[in-house]
Amino acid sequence: MTRICFVFLLSLIFSVAAKAQNREVPAKSIPVPQTVSPEIQKLIAQPYSGTWNVFPPTAEEWKKQIGAVEAATVKGLPALREQLKVKVEPTTIDGVKAYIVTPETIAPENRNRLLVHVHGGCFASFSGESLTVEPIYMAGFGRYKIVAVDYRVPPDHPYPAALDDAMTVWKALVKTTPAKNMAIFGSSAGGNLTLAMVLRAKQEKLPLPGAIAPGTPMSDLTGAGDSFQTNAMVDNVLVAYGANCDQRAKLYTAGRDLKDPLLSPVYGDLSGFPPAILTTGTRDLLLSNTVRVHRKLRQAGVEATLQVFEGQSHAQYYRDPNAPESREAFEEIARFFDKHLGR
Amino acid sequence: MTRICFVFLLSLIFSVAAKAQNREVPAKSIPVPQTVSPEIQKLIAQPYSGTWNVFPPTAEEWKKQIGAVEAATVKGLPALREQLKVKVEPTTIDGVKAYIVTPETIAPENRNRLLVHVHGGCFASFSGESLTVEPIYMAGFGRYKIVAVDYRVPPDHPYPAALDDAMTVWKALVKTTPAKNMAIFGSSAGGNLTLAMVLRAKQEKLPLPGAIAPGTPMSDLTGAGDSFQTNAMVDNVLVAYGANCDQRAKLYTAGRDLKDPLLSPVYGDLSGFPPAILTTGTRDLLLSNTVRVHRKLRQAGVEATLQVFEGQSHAQYYRDPNAPESREAFEEIARFFDKHLGR
Repeated sequence: MTRICFVFLLSLIFSVAAKAQNREVPAKSIPVPQTVSPEIQKLIAQPYSGTWNVFPPTAEEWKKQIGAVEAATVKGLPALREQLKVKVEPTTIDGVKAYIVTPETIAPENRNRLLVHVHGGCFASFSGESLTVEPIYMAGFGRYKIVAVDYRVPPDHPYPAALDDAMTVWKALVKTTPAKNMAIFGSSAGGNLTLAMVLRAKQEKLPLPGAIAPGTPMSDLTGAGDSFQTNAMVDNVLVAYGANCDQRAKLYTAGRDLKDPLLSPVYGDLSGFPPAILTTGTRDLLLSNTVRVHRKLRQAGVEATLQVFEGQSHAQYYRDPNAPESREAFEEIARFFDKHLGR
Repeated sequence: MTRICFVFLLSLIFSVAAKAQNREVPAKSIPVPQTVSPEIQKLIAQPYSGTWNVFPPTAEEWKKQIGAVEAATVKGLPALREQLKVKVEPTTIDGVKAYIVTPETIAPENRNRLLVHVHGGCFASFSGESLTVEPIYMAGFGRYKIVAVDYRVPPDHPYPAALDDAMTVWKALVKTTPAKNMAIFGSSAGGNLTLAMVLRAKQEKLPLPGAIAPGTPMSDLTGAGDSFQTNAMVDNVLVAYGANCDQRAKLYTAGRDLKDPLLSPVYGDLSGFPPAILTTGTRDLLLSNTVRVHRKLRQAGVEATLQVFEGQSHAQYYRDPNAPESREAFEEIARFFDKHLGR
């Protein structure tokens, strides 16, 4: 009896101590900020993404859910291409599917330059033509030619298929274009893959790109990162850690050690990385995992810059081509590339 | 009756529509992140600052509350100076009180350079020796000589006394040191004053500094900025908009138009500004008002860089000299100054 009482008291003490350490944040009703453009206000006002807490029970059901979003995305592409005056052509590079994304006018200073894009979608989504959204923004606003990799995805092809495909394309491209004239970019899972590609290139002693732009990278798949907590239920795209996006990432990691730097690049050795520009938003669930990579790059002596957009949730900078913030984000990345890429 | 019913229905529709626009965030218990140093973990684990919701009813009571915090701060100064090997001497410059803050060794490249510091404290706090905390960090980690302005404060001296005093010092210093060899820095209200000084210098056609470092600037006193909402009750220093700090700021603004760029510099014309480095944290109540200034500077074509520290609330980067993040923040600012200041 005394012993039970003691254990009870101990657990009480520990729970109070633990509680004192935690920040107890009351429920809040957060209005749409007036400090962003009307276009971004509309994105912020949207409810949580429809599937954020819908987890299909089988691989086939996952493919169905993913496919439905991809099909809806593809429907919007002709208008996007027309508005941003961008051409998209499918191709194959050493057996890997890809798209060549070309602006109506390549900027004169970019004629001997090439960007390599690895798409987001929590490693499982946005295969095929639906992956071209972000490169269309980049080509349109930045006036670069882009090779966008249509890497294999889970559940059929878990890690390292995506990274292998991206590296196959990189190895092919460095044969014909100086690596220093090329940059790699991509957001979310694409930000992860951008960082992982550089880690792999270092491992394999391949030439590194002249610059990179990991957008709101899924840099830490272990769940560490303070904004997973602080921006939970604030971000209306990813919404919370462990939600749909992380379930898709699990199809990719498939039971591997999540601290492997090729899966969670924030744990990698970032020394010798090329200049990097990172993009995120104040409401982004991955705010922490963006700024943590930024700090790690700076600690490693890498030229790295950070842009954080007011009020934006995860990767909302390529949702509306009419938002001035979209143009701003990609023009900033384009200027950064222009500063650092060879000609 | 029908009309009343119609009005009732209308208000119901509007309230539902308004609610749909807001983000309803449930209560949360947020643990201390493991992604920061043990020193910063201790700061994050602290409860809300003791006076965040204690508003003295009279000017005299305000002075008492402010004085108590200042006195407690002064007690810690000898140990801080000793640890960071920094010397502090009071002085007067054209009638304005100031402190000369000197590291044991001024870096050779900084011998002909000088930093000007304007302190934080919501415009009303940290007068006298207590203002030297931040410059001691800067001198110790950055190895620059610093002039720290002990500007007049409200309630006795509302706006523009502080800015006038800072400008008096600036005008005196540019007579003996090339402006391009000098940088202005300061956090919170000091970040506001850093920006306001450059706006005033532009207005008065005075030479501009070679660089500035506005730390988590109170750049918008109108209450606009999304993180006032998203980081409310998450930040354990300022805690929420309208709390103690904003009440002190009201003593400074004293009924003036808060959209005046000299009070809310985010509304100013930032073109022609010198290179700027801004510092904030992911839990900072002023995260938005830091990144908004960063974006406005970039939109104006100014070289501006942003560092965002994981998990930190408002201005927690000069709370613990043993935190590696403190050293990192000031060394980064020092490097930025070194890159941009004349010699």
